[in-house]
Amino acid sequence: MARIKDVALLAGVNRSTVSRIINGEGKFRADTKRKVEQAMAELNYRPSAIARSLATASSNMIGLLVTNYTGGFFGEMMDQVQSELDLHKKFLITAQGRHSADGEREAICRFHDLRCDGYVLNSRYLSDDELRELALEPTPFVLLDRFVEGLESRCITFDHSLAGHMAVSHLIKLGHREIGCISGPLSRTNSRQRYQGYINALKDAEMAIEPTLSFEGNYGRESGYLAAQKLYQDHPDMTALFSCNEDMIGGALQFFHEHNIEVPKQISLISFDSVDLCASFYPTVSAVHFPISDMARVAVEVLKNQIKKEIISVNRHFEPELRIRKGERVI
Amino acid sequence: MARIKDVALLAGVNRSTVSRIINGEGKFRADTKRKVEQAMAELNYRPSAIARSLATASSNMIGLLVTNYTGGFFGEMMDQVQSELDLHKKFLITAQGRHSADGEREAICRFHDLRCDGYVLNSRYLSDDELRELALEPTPFVLLDRFVEGLESRCITFDHSLAGHMAVSHLIKLGHREIGCISGPLSRTNSRQRYQGYINALKDAEMAIEPTLSFEGNYGRESGYLAAQKLYQDHPDMTALFSCNEDMIGGALQFFHEHNIEVPKQISLISFDSVDLCASFYPTVSAVHFPISDMARVAVEVLKNQIKKEIISVNRHFEPELRIRKGERVI
Repeated sequence: MARIKDVALLAGVNRSTVSRIINGEGKFRADTKRKVEQAMAELNYRPSAIARSLATASSNMIGLLVTNYTGGFFGEMMDQVQSELDLHKKFLITAQGRHSADGEREAICRFHDLRCDGYVLNSRYLSDDELRELALEPTPFVLLDRFVEGLESRCITFDHSLAGHMAVSHLIKLGHREIGCISGPLSRTNSRQRYQGYINALKDAEMAIEPTLSFEGNYGRESGYLAAQKLYQDHPDMTALFSCNEDMIGGALQFFHEHNIEVPKQISLISFDSVDLCASFYPTVSAVHFPISDMARVAVEVLKNQIKKEIISVNRHFEPELRIRKGERVI
Repeated sequence: MARIKDVALLAGVNRSTVSRIINGEGKFRADTKRKVEQAMAELNYRPSAIARSLATASSNMIGLLVTNYTGGFFGEMMDQVQSELDLHKKFLITAQGRHSADGEREAICRFHDLRCDGYVLNSRYLSDDELRELALEPTPFVLLDRFVEGLESRCITFDHSLAGHMAVSHLIKLGHREIGCISGPLSRTNSRQRYQGYINALKDAEMAIEPTLSFEGNYGRESGYLAAQKLYQDHPDMTALFSCNEDMIGGALQFFHEHNIEVPKQISLISFDSVDLCASFYPTVSAVHFPISDMARVAVEVLKNQIKKEIISVNRHFEPELRIRKGERVI
């Protein structure tokens, strides 16, 4: 690809003239401008985004923090953010927080070093205080799937507790009374809320809360397998199981298959889901859908407005939807 | 976070002095340098990577082209490349080609606009000629999982044909004679090679090639379901099935489960795999492993050496390994 010196040579001007015309600096005669523009077109010259970013004080880059690139969930998120940025010819810079506050801090520093115009943060480990402090910095950011008091206008949130409630109420309506729960790590707010939804649904139905019917997993497949094993061993009368994510229900399903426990004849299953993995199990598993892709789209929209310092009305709050499949039955 | 003017103020010097000290330009008195360095440390100032890139003529950015962010395969690839770049304090810029030559071209233009120091290209749609032309440009790149004649030193390759051969030979050794194949799109080189491995294994065993025992899928789960349906309908005597990727075997498994066709009693399965998805099916499915994570690591290593214009000896050619699980049996 052509470089700036090639353009200068072809147009018969010097390099700084080309550079200043690209960046809209200073005044030039119409025919000088035309000659440079023709040379750029002819050579298919693409100006450096970096040089232009210094000239325009906008890097045209947006930073996206995710926990990990692996796993379908973050892939969906990144894909949606990239699609939105493509529409606006902006560059996407991604970084992984890798399950620690230090990792998330380092990712944000990286976005800062590149002078990103704004950040979309799917932060799970930074404290509310640290995020409020970050909000005092000039660079705008939005929080994807996180609520922080005082930062309401930057938060894109999902009602995890309602989602858990919806899933478990569905099982109760089908007649189930011994319902197990595989939760995520309870140290995390969203995981706690999903679990709380399970508890609330039982309470609303005036059912007893039996602590040994819950198992704290880590969202990994294996923890779902172990959970199903332990819960079924302690509660052979359990007729239904709610899982707080799709990978764990996959592990649980494997346990039931391997031990000839028929789904849904002997045990009904329901799960949280974000990438329709539950639709591809055998049997397919009903789930409350976590609309991460829609939320990522709105996050970019809110961020764009913050960068332009425009205030628009956007629905920043998402609600769950129940997707009924074949993994549960009336008893 | 502190800006350059804050550093200048605290150090009692002007902005350009700070900037030139950061970029190692010009000569300054030892105590001026010390004052600036102390102020930077005190204010936790992080210089702009962009400003520095213009000063050093290195953006410190590496571009990675993948087909899509979604799906575990590309997540593994991105994760590995990011991990390697983290070690060298380099920035990762990712872009999706989205299944077209235009998409791949646009991604590379983007890397060029950002003046990336080098690219890792998992290009599937650009022609060999176009890649050879790109090699005339000054920016170094490596081709991940692609062989292009004339660009051997830039290619990180995998023996797809040997892998297919290995998988199918394993089934033949177990006594299978009616072996179906779900291939990927045969318009793509690597897919054709995997399929060729199937054909070669049959030929080596002096078995007849039956065209209706093959079904061309698109690597998506649903095409695997359809393939299993069609192949089983046309060949009820088929005892084994080889799938050219993990998602398609997942779809096939669902078909067999739904139709009470027992695996491996009635049908033995074997697949290509890159992210150990086959280990999480029920029953677990044996597979030839595609070491995309290792290949991505080596790609970054080769690229780093090309950027530094060093020639080192690296194994750029990867071979498959068979991972035996429970989805197949001796007949």
